[in-house]
Amino acid sequence: MNDFRPVPEDKFTFGLWTVGWRGVNTFGDPVRPPLDGADAVRRLAELGAHGITFHDDDLIPPGSSDADREAILKRFRGALEETGLAVPMVTTNLFTHPVFRDGGFTSNSRDVRRYALRKVIRNIDLAVSMGATTYVCWGGQDGAETEAGKNDAAALDRLREAFDLLCGYVREQGYDLRFAIEPKPNEPRGDVLLPTVGHALAFINELEHPEMVGVNPEVGHEQMAGLNFAHGVAQALWAGKLFHIDLNGQRGVKYDQDLRFGAGDVKEAFFLVDLLESAGYDGPRHFDFKPPRTEDMSGVWESARACMRNYLILREKARAFRADPEVAAALEAARVPELSRPTLAEGESVADLLTEEIDLAEVGERGYHFEKLDQLALEHLFGVR
Amino acid sequence: MNDFRPVPEDKFTFGLWTVGWRGVNTFGDPVRPPLDGADAVRRLAELGAHGITFHDDDLIPPGSSDADREAILKRFRGALEETGLAVPMVTTNLFTHPVFRDGGFTSNSRDVRRYALRKVIRNIDLAVSMGATTYVCWGGQDGAETEAGKNDAAALDRLREAFDLLCGYVREQGYDLRFAIEPKPNEPRGDVLLPTVGHALAFINELEHPEMVGVNPEVGHEQMAGLNFAHGVAQALWAGKLFHIDLNGQRGVKYDQDLRFGAGDVKEAFFLVDLLESAGYDGPRHFDFKPPRTEDMSGVWESARACMRNYLILREKARAFRADPEVAAALEAARVPELSRPTLAEGESVADLLTEEIDLAEVGERGYHFEKLDQLALEHLFGVR
Amino acid sequence: MNDFRPVPEDKFTFGLWTVGWRGVNTFGDPVRPPLDGADAVRRLAELGAHGITFHDDDLIPPGSSDADREAILKRFRGALEETGLAVPMVTTNLFTHPVFRDGGFTSNSRDVRRYALRKVIRNIDLAVSMGATTYVCWGGQDGAETEAGKNDAAALDRLREAFDLLCGYVREQGYDLRFAIEPKPNEPRGDVLLPTVGHALAFINELEHPEMVGVNPEVGHEQMAGLNFAHGVAQALWAGKLFHIDLNGQRGVKYDQDLRFGAGDVKEAFFLVDLLESAGYDGPRHFDFKPPRTEDMSGVWESARACMRNYLILREKARAFRADPEVAAALEAARVPELSRPTLAEGESVADLLTEEIDLAEVGERGYHFEKLDQLALEHLFGVR
Amino acid sequence: MNDFRPVPEDKFTFGLWTVGWRGVNTFGDPVRPPLDGADAVRRLAELGAHGITFHDDDLIPPGSSDADREAILKRFRGALEETGLAVPMVTTNLFTHPVFRDGGFTSNSRDVRRYALRKVIRNIDLAVSMGATTYVCWGGQDGAETEAGKNDAAALDRLREAFDLLCGYVREQGYDLRFAIEPKPNEPRGDVLLPTVGHALAFINELEHPEMVGVNPEVGHEQMAGLNFAHGVAQALWAGKLFHIDLNGQRGVKYDQDLRFGAGDVKEAFFLVDLLESAGYDGPRHFDFKPPRTEDMSGVWESARACMRNYLILREKARAFRADPEVAAALEAARVPELSRPTLAEGESVADLLTEEIDLAEVGERGYHFEKLDQLALEHLFGVR
Repeated sequence: MNDFRPVPEDKFTFGLWTVGWRGVNTFGDPVRPPLDGADAVRRLAELGAHGITFHDDDLIPPGSSDADREAILKRFRGALEETGLAVPMVTTNLFTHPVFRDGGFTSNSRDVRRYALRKVIRNIDLAVSMGATTYVCWGGQDGAETEAGKNDAAALDRLREAFDLLCGYVREQGYDLRFAIEPKPNEPRGDVLLPTVGHALAFINELEHPEMVGVNPEVGHEQMAGLNFAHGVAQALWAGKLFHIDLNGQRGVKYDQDLRFGAGDVKEAFFLVDLLESAGYDGPRHFDFKPPRTEDMSGVWESARACMRNYLILREKARAFRADPEVAAALEAARVPELSRPTLAEGESVADLLTEEIDLAEVGERGYHFEKLDQLALEHLFGVR
Repeated sequence: MNDFRPVPEDKFTFGLWTVGWRGVNTFGDPVRPPLDGADAVRRLAELGAHGITFHDDDLIPPGSSDADREAILKRFRGALEETGLAVPMVTTNLFTHPVFRDGGFTSNSRDVRRYALRKVIRNIDLAVSMGATTYVCWGGQDGAETEAGKNDAAALDRLREAFDLLCGYVREQGYDLRFAIEPKPNEPRGDVLLPTVGHALAFINELEHPEMVGVNPEVGHEQMAGLNFAHGVAQALWAGKLFHIDLNGQRGVKYDQDLRFGAGDVKEAFFLVDLLESAGYDGPRHFDFKPPRTEDMSGVWESARACMRNYLILREKARAFRADPEVAAALEAARVPELSRPTLAEGESVADLLTEEIDLAEVGERGYHFEKLDQLALEHLFGVR
Repeated sequence: MNDFRPVPEDKFTFGLWTVGWRGVNTFGDPVRPPLDGADAVRRLAELGAHGITFHDDDLIPPGSSDADREAILKRFRGALEETGLAVPMVTTNLFTHPVFRDGGFTSNSRDVRRYALRKVIRNIDLAVSMGATTYVCWGGQDGAETEAGKNDAAALDRLREAFDLLCGYVREQGYDLRFAIEPKPNEPRGDVLLPTVGHALAFINELEHPEMVGVNPEVGHEQMAGLNFAHGVAQALWAGKLFHIDLNGQRGVKYDQDLRFGAGDVKEAFFLVDLLESAGYDGPRHFDFKPPRTEDMSGVWESARACMRNYLILREKARAFRADPEVAAALEAARVPELSRPTLAEGESVADLLTEEIDLAEVGERGYHFEKLDQLALEHLFGVR
Repeated sequence: MNDFRPVPEDKFTFGLWTVGWRGVNTFGDPVRPPLDGADAVRRLAELGAHGITFHDDDLIPPGSSDADREAILKRFRGALEETGLAVPMVTTNLFTHPVFRDGGFTSNSRDVRRYALRKVIRNIDLAVSMGATTYVCWGGQDGAETEAGKNDAAALDRLREAFDLLCGYVREQGYDLRFAIEPKPNEPRGDVLLPTVGHALAFINELEHPEMVGVNPEVGHEQMAGLNFAHGVAQALWAGKLFHIDLNGQRGVKYDQDLRFGAGDVKEAFFLVDLLESAGYDGPRHFDFKPPRTEDMSGVWESARACMRNYLILREKARAFRADPEVAAALEAARVPELSRPTLAEGESVADLLTEEIDLAEVGERGYHFEKLDQLALEHLFGVR
């Protein structure tokens, strides 16, 4: 039996803030000790990960002296070299500090917006120096509890201004770096700007350099809006905009759970892996989860290990599903391949359509046999085929 | 006191299928008699509406003979002329008939897709003949219960093919007509293609003639995904894509309620009207609601009347809110106008940003006074100011 | 490998209205032909079911003559005898007809309430004559769209009056019959009376004969409120009130999907089967699902077959999970058995508690190892252990 | 015009942890300074509140020396005496400290359960000494992320054991104190034990002294499950179990927002106040909200002031609604009073029911005129009548 052990080629990456989450939330104090970045690198490498990612403040505590900063970076780089772990993505913390209480790029305070941009730019230099080619932007505090307090058109203008400036900077510096916007519908703000993959994709089209900006969808963020994650990712792929992805778990429309990958909507996880693998997505499989507060550090690593293991299990199942001749027959019976055929034949025009008729009664009786197809998927998921 | 009586200049329009809804759903038989189109026209005109809209099948029962069709149209046009009611928008029913059980433009069945296009094109000619300048497309059956049954990339390709073909037809005919896509997250399908305003806006950008296609957001559809409707409409306006709007009410994340406008999330309704009026939206205020099954026809008209009345009440309140000097002061205190100021001054560059510092402790203490501002809005809503 | 073929001893039962659902909903016409009750009996028997259930109107169309009624019943009873299929439960349709537009037992109309009671009583006699020992009551129209329209205290009084009367009738007749209330949060009404298992359990305690009334929880109904179904069923079991259960699938907080069992929240389905089997629930495993409109009759039977098959698959997995020594060790590590130990020892009092202290720092560091345990469950679900 | 200034007779009370909330959540650091208990007392008194409530740890920081504790209590009692502010309710913090990471009364750890009971009992003595007659229990950490980790039957046994012990203690001490259980569906745990008002009411019925235990429903907690708050409170009132109430605001199914009262679902707030006032609820109107992180301390007090003001505004509107003759007529037309009439007349039996018939067609056409009634409510809410 496959033992589902990850190797770097699987491209699994973890945020330093995930295994390093100490468990603070609205209702609870920290339950775990701080985790040193270099230690995280070593442990993730042992587990078979490909890379580590971080927010500026995860790695270098805000307020560190230059000497401390250098010492931290030296230790961290040392661990990376020692283990071969990559840093394919970096991001900025524009939410924890009180200055960001009304947002970063779209704070009503202009000085805060300027500070947010500065914080990102400084961290971009570090990111690039570590080899990152993707820069994620999550504007978690960019939102509102009252519509009266935020002029949306102005907020979108400022957000466009920010991305145009950042893209300009990257171009000027000649960096090989793309941005990935991470949407979220709410929490910590009552409503967040760019709440879904769709809103982010639409926004990107208004930028000066749309080709430099894509999305970083997160499983739980879309599911918090009751949206189907695989469908959202499929639209991002269709638009050529899946620059990065955050894998985790969520059990329905509620607070942001950040469960380990596989532990939320299991069926959706199967179809997501099926989609990513079928579509040839070759970027990192990035885990952005929070090991529950009930876990001590041994549970944290168990949870991290399981994220990768679940992906590998589902990948094997998805491949078996696609290779199963009965599935191929069921797809045919469900007319799935027929949807890839253009509705009009080459050279046909509206006139050809208009002269045609169908037998409504007969076509109306047609069944699509989706239940059989879905059951086959489920049985592959269950491992009973 | 203002008596909140609508006049045609208020641009209130109603779907024929709304006041004509007979109350059939999964759990119940029809509770009301059929409503004749011409009668609806007369009644809506009496109530002060500006226009009526319809799906092809609302007006002309499927299977009608040519003679019946002509007779119905004659009666309907007669009522329009008599009352002066306009038909600013028309749409197609691509969901009720069993042939559409797997969708219209994206059905896995190619013959159904062709039929759906044909049905739309035929109805476009009628729409234009009645003076409609907006054509709404709601692909309610375009979705899936199982991800395995729908190839999303192919579905999006087919949807693009459909809109490119329809736009081409409209251009060829020289019609003055634009399309408005109506997003919905789910119901009647488990998940619907283009689930939110954001996804629809993003899709439109991939079309051959994006300038001919916009969105028709519906209050309840966004709220079914827990999304803030005013924010979604604001993004559509920002993108220049608010071609039409469906006003109704919804009480949270649940089945599609289609309550009368104002009867769902009252505060959101206030901010929506405030937005539409502030932004200078000048299209129809279209009510797409379903009078509850508990109502007889007198209740239906009461409900229709109240949709318009609630809009007018909220419009008056929104104007008073914006004219209130204390509100102006509260907006200033909340730094709302400051967001309209570009983050970088003219001529400034990244270098200027990087040389600047802020006092994090001091800026972190800054309060935004949104509670006071929101309370002023609420008190205008309550009519106690 | 286990072929997961159901046998009557598995106690699988189906509502006649499930396989017989013709696909009518708010947005669509019927897509399938009527299904004769006797035919359904034969087909379900072939598939390995134990029993069939029905609403009065499913079996005998409203308005049937006495002769028609007798003929239908004769055919139906004949099929039951021929196949050995049981009728363990019967229920009443108090929602489809327009008279129930404001509810049955709690309609504001007293004549409707009286009619609803009459309809139930007449059907109870039939139910008992067929051997049913459980009578389900779903008050789907008992609710409101406006709080102003329903006096809740009066509604609860009337509901109590109804159950007290029905229990009295059953006792007078000497029937061996218990009632099971089916809660639902909303749809078709905006809000439904007794929205969750909890509310129904609480209501039952106010009855004259609480011992005669239990609950019939439905997977999707609790999940429509974002509630965990297994936890709700566990509370019903703890209260000795799980008289019946409706198995189906739902994908999150949205309209009532009634997917086949297993096709919704897969992980929850696993834990539900684990609970039912561990707790020794010995009543029917009743499927209350709606085969999607995309299916023709072959798909309907495929869907029905899969409901049973999924239960059997999950039952095997749940047994393997409980028998796995590593799981036993993980349960111990997670201190699960410790919760069954009373908090106070026999003979201990408050005084004993108050004189004790714990080392907060040390106990605060304790991990619960739930991630490992949950991952073991998931791997049993995946069939990779 | 009424200036809506609260007076102590209005019975408005506030949790010390509400105005004292510093703004820590999963994504953000504290934004406001600590608030001293005695200062809070003075400020709330100035604003017109009736009382203040607290968790043990709100008032006395954990780990305080006996001397510090006495000093704090002296200051606090001094402020109470000076201002006349009451302490009608007290509660325990069984969630913040890491020892409670798997719950309090139902932690898998027996030593934690014993500590939780001890912590409550010690605080009960303090509560009674301050004149509290209600003791709220919110078991926020009593829940699970994985069903495998929590034996629900054992958890409910332990919860019953806890309440039986606490009730026993209160009886032994001769205290005039009742318990109120506060339900919540999720957050901080994935699923919380006793998720709704209904589940809590059902649980109470299993206790040794059910008469000593009621519920403390919170607006946002029920709305997080998409449940109608007024209906839930009505059922609690009907069961004689509304011992206390937590007023705040929530905008739909999402994370726990704890907005100020009135700022969430405005219509529901109106019907809630209407219900509390009509039903003669005479307990405290307790605000359990969290002033948004965007506010500084001036915004905190503005928010607190608005909670009370909104209640008074809605109370006036509810009274006007009930006094409006047109409303009385509309209630009659909607047959609302008819629901208070027993379905069977005195002396009637099943036999009387069975001999009666109704004209289904005629009764099926009956309209209930709820739209008109609801619109009247809305217009009272808007202040346009």
